[in-house]
Parts: sequence; C-alpha cells; structure tokens
Amino acid sequence: MAVYTEVGDDELEAFLAGYDLGRLMSYKGIAEGVENSNFLLQTDTGSYILTLYEKRTRPEDLPFFLGLMDHLAAKGFPCPTPIHDRAGRALGRLAGRPAAIVSFLNGVWPRRIQSFHTAQLGEAMARMHQAGASFGQRRANDLGLARWRPLFAEIGQRADGIAPGLAALIGRELDALDAEWPQGLPTGVIHADLFPDNVFFIGEKFSGIIDYYFACTDAYAYELAICLNAWCFEADCSFNITKARLMFAGYQKVRPLEEAELAALTRLARGAAMRFLLTRLYDWFNHPEGAQVTRKDPREYLAKLRFHQGLASAASYGLDLG
Amino acid sequence: MAVYTEVGDDELEAFLAGYDLGRLMSYKGIAEGVENSNFLLQTDTGSYILTLYEKRTRPEDLPFFLGLMDHLAAKGFPCPTPIHDRAGRALGRLAGRPAAIVSFLNGVWPRRIQSFHTAQLGEAMARMHQAGASFGQRRANDLGLARWRPLFAEIGQRADGIAPGLAALIGRELDALDAEWPQGLPTGVIHADLFPDNVFFIGEKFSGIIDYYFACTDAYAYELAICLNAWCFEADCSFNITKARLMFAGYQKVRPLEEAELAALTRLARGAAMRFLLTRLYDWFNHPEGAQVTRKDPREYLAKLRFHQGLASAASYGLDLG
Repeated sequence: MAVYTEVGDDELEAFLAGYDLGRLMSYKGIAEGVENSNFLLQTDTGSYILTLYEKRTRPEDLPFFLGLMDHLAAKGFPCPTPIHDRAGRALGRLAGRPAAIVSFLNGVWPRRIQSFHTAQLGEAMARMHQAGASFGQRRANDLGLARWRPLFAEIGQRADGIAPGLAALIGRELDALDAEWPQGLPTGVIHADLFPDNVFFIGEKFSGIIDYYFACTDAYAYELAICLNAWCFEADCSFNITKARLMFAGYQKVRPLEEAELAALTRLARGAAMRFLLTRLYDWFNHPEGAQVTRKDPREYLAKLRFHQGLASAASYGLDLG
Repeated sequence: MAVYTEVGDDELEAFLAGYDLGRLMSYKGIAEGVENSNFLLQTDTGSYILTLYEKRTRPEDLPFFLGLMDHLAAKGFPCPTPIHDRAGRALGRLAGRPAAIVSFLNGVWPRRIQSFHTAQLGEAMARMHQAGASFGQRRANDLGLARWRPLFAEIGQRADGIAPGLAALIGRELDALDAEWPQGLPTGVIHADLFPDNVFFIGEKFSGIIDYYFACTDAYAYELAICLNAWCFEADCSFNITKARLMFAGYQKVRPLEEAELAALTRLARGAAMRFLLTRLYDWFNHPEGAQVTRKDPREYLAKLRFHQGLASAASYGLDLG
C-alpha cells in the first residue's frame, strides 16, 4: 500500500492555505503505488492528488518530474498537472517530506489487457514522446545500462536461489548487451515505467498517463521495448503478437520508427527485460521486514528475457521490416 | 490498510451495470479502516464508497447495518446512504464478497481533538440516537457484557505480559461489573464504535458519521461512555474534563439524560474501557502474520479503566448531578 507518512488534518489545512484550491472537503490515503504516499483530496473546487515523496525519490529530481508534467499538460497531453501555490511553487513540504499536489486524472487502469488497450497505448506513447520533445530539461536514466552491473553485483550468486544458473545467465547477457547496446537512436523524454497501472482508460478509451517519477532522457524505442514486455505477454508469459502489432501500429500512426530503431528492437527488449529482472531480484532480496508491499516475481522477467534472446529480428513482434 | 480484496476493472464495470450510477471514471483503494476493503468510486454522477465485506463482518448482520443507514439518512441524519441497484437491493456480491455502495460523505476526521469537536460530537450523537429510535430492527451487542468473560478466557494469563497483575485486575473488575452493571436504562440503536476516525468535520463544523458496522441495540448512555474514553483523554491518558463537559452539554441540548443514566455513568465508562481493553488484548495476541494493520496498545485502555475505577460519581466528568 502507499501511505508511509500520516498527515494530520491541522497540518494539511495549513499546507492548503498556501494554495487557491478552496475548502478541504475530504482526504483519504490511497492504497496504490509503492514508492510514495498518495492521498486523494477533495475540495470545493475539485479532486486532487497529494503526493509525499518518500526516500526512494531523490529530492533533486523533483523539479525535472514536476516540470515535465507542467510541460506535457501545457502541450495538451493528458497527465496530472502540478498545482502551483500562490507563490508559484509546484513543490512544497508537508509532514517532513517534499510534497506536491497535482490535478486528479479520471480513468481506470486495465487489470486485464485487451488488444484495444495496446493499440491506444502505442498512439498515446508516441504523442507523449512528441509533446516531451520540446521539454528543456534532461535527466539521465539512472536505471539504464550503466546501472545494471552494479545492481547485479549487489545480488550476486543469490540469483541462483530464484532459478538454477540464473547468475551465470545474467553475467553472459550483460556482456552481450554491453557489446551490442544500440547507440545513436532518436532520444528524448521517456516515461520509463509505462506499466498498465500507470495508463488510464474510461470505458475502452485512453484517458491519460500518470506517475512520471522514473521519467528520463533515453531512446524512444527503449520505451516501446519496456511496453512490449509489460503489455504484450499473457499471464503465462506467452507472447501475444496481436497486442504487439497493434501497439507498434498505434505508435507509428503518430511517429514512424526509423530503420535503426527497428533493427535495435530485440536488443532493446532484452535490455528492458534485464532492467526489470534486476530490480525485481534486488527488491526480492532487500524486502524490508513487515513491508506493506507485495514482492513481484523476478522469474516473469527471466521468461521474457529468454523469449527475446531467441528471436532473429523484430519481425517476430509483428513488425513489417520492409 | 484496507484493501484485502483486489477488484478487476471488468468485474467492477459488470457490477456497476446493475446500478444507475452512470459511467465509471475512477476507482481507488482506500488505505483506511481495518475490517473491510474500501474503494472510492467516481462516476459521472458523483463520488461513492464501495465496500467489500471481509470475514470479520457477518453477512447475516449486513441487512441491519445497511437498513440502519437507510433509516438514518431518510431521517436527515448525515451518514452514508446505501445506493440501491435497479432491483432495489442495497447488498450485492463482487469478487466473491458481499458488497455494497454507499454515497460519499464529505468531511475530514480530526487527528487532534479540540473542545469544539466534542461539543458537536455530543449533539450529533443525541440526534443520531433520536433518528434511530424509530428504526424497526434490533441487533444484540455482540461485544457487550456477556462477551467479556469468554474474550478474557481466550486471553488468560498472557495479559500479565502486557502489564504485571493485569489478568487478576481484569478478573476482579469483571466480577464487579457483573454485579453492578446497570439495567433498565433507555435503550436503542447505538453506533458502538464512535471513535474520531468515524466522525467527520468540514473546517470546525460537524459533517457526518460513518462506519456503522458495530451498530447494535444497547443503552444510549453506554455510547456516551465509549466516547468519554475515545475523545476526552489526552495522548498521555490524562482526562480532559472540559472536553467531557462540552460533550455531555451538547448531548443534553438534544436529549437530557435521566437520573438513572447519570448514576450509571462511571460503571458504564468502566465497562466501555473493559470492552476495548479486552478486544485490544485479543488482537494483540492474535495478530495475523504479515497483517497490514498496526496493533493498538491495550495499556491505553487499562489506564482509562483505572481512572474510572477511582471515581465516586459522574461529577468528575464535569456533570452537574443536581
């Protein structure tokens, strides 16, 4: 669940006095998300989300995240809009934590992915990439290629407890990715955590994307690779080529992929699988005692990595390589 | 936290199709409450609370609880109103659980109690008692006097691990309460769990009472005794006579207490302290492994019990006994 910090009504009222949001009618902690504490606020002017940033979010990154949401919203992309206080600040402090209020985004995230979801995801992702292209700030991907070896070093041979031979497999794959990692692809702001729980729909229609707290500057096609893993496999880890084809088609309606991006996709997909395999392994072995968060099974991402390792080209994702 | 059961978007949409609530715009699990799973729903007609009843709520009691909320709301008392489906039912089934939707009640529960809270609590409580007087159903208090000995039997000598001599103290006090428990007091529907987190305010004004899942037929003055313990002691367990006096004054503006009720108050307050001392002890020793609920310290209620044991009359609560 996602309320690590309790907020008193007195201190919340005092915090809200700095904003033009009207009178506080209700606030309730939300049992979703794993990194920060989130509250749904209702005032007589509408609904808002209050986020208290906990220790896994670095305070120095917050101006990038909030600035990005400001930028995307100004470009008309449906995302939470940071609410600025009377002094113009999007970032404040509440209950000893950095805190921000954003507009409430309507929508429901899909628990069971259907093809119409991935088609619209692809199109929305491309629109987000286009809207973010003119954003002036940069932020390195601190969970990118350069971070994978140090992460693996902290996991080490314990990986074999999850699946026999896993440590050796990761070592070989990291060597291969280091040697073959694509360079010079079109780059800009990516969300970098575009899992189903961050993408909202109303009925069967895309309504917006939330949670920009992993956003960074990286290859656009790497975002597609992350989504290939997160949206186009079934619960048994079988690959659904229809969902993938529709996702790519939706994306390319807005922004056609370059030849170099198509050629890089299987490697990017292996890298994207490696990133989540490693962070899930790390979280598995560093699960805090009594944590109110369910651990995610790393083997899901091992299966996805193996799938991509066996492919000759992006044609296996349903793409027409011409 | 309070989401024990996950609800899929598909099954929620199917469930909502039986109601006239409009289109689902959002639903989020709420990290409050300890007994049931609660979700805040937003549709294009407004905000609602969806509750899935978990195993500690007995399904056979649900018609009483929901019927009571229907009755109080119809009498104009501010409480969540059960939403009936197109077939007229307030109680449905979702994700394998009994489930109900109620209207969303605006307000914030007070984290730090001030005197104006207890004054309004008293008045609201009396109005609730009056509004409930014409409710046709009855439900015995299954956490009343008759249940305390069996509860204590399940705790036994382990109580001494919480405070030396506690088991003997409880045994003696149960003997005394059995001998002296007041009979024949004015009786009707009481909430029976009127703690601050169930009473809402907007700014400094009372806005409503939620969570009727302990409601039962019992002495009205016993409700006042529960609130005396829950609202009129400071964090260090010192008694705040100003808060108590204002609570009783607020109550008596609407419903003056009878002489027998005034005479019974210290015994009722001891009983109310015993009830929460015993359930907190029980929960302390029966805390499920990995439960996402914080245990409450039973010693708080031991201190309150001892306070009431030392009193000669309800004059110590700031009441004028004439």
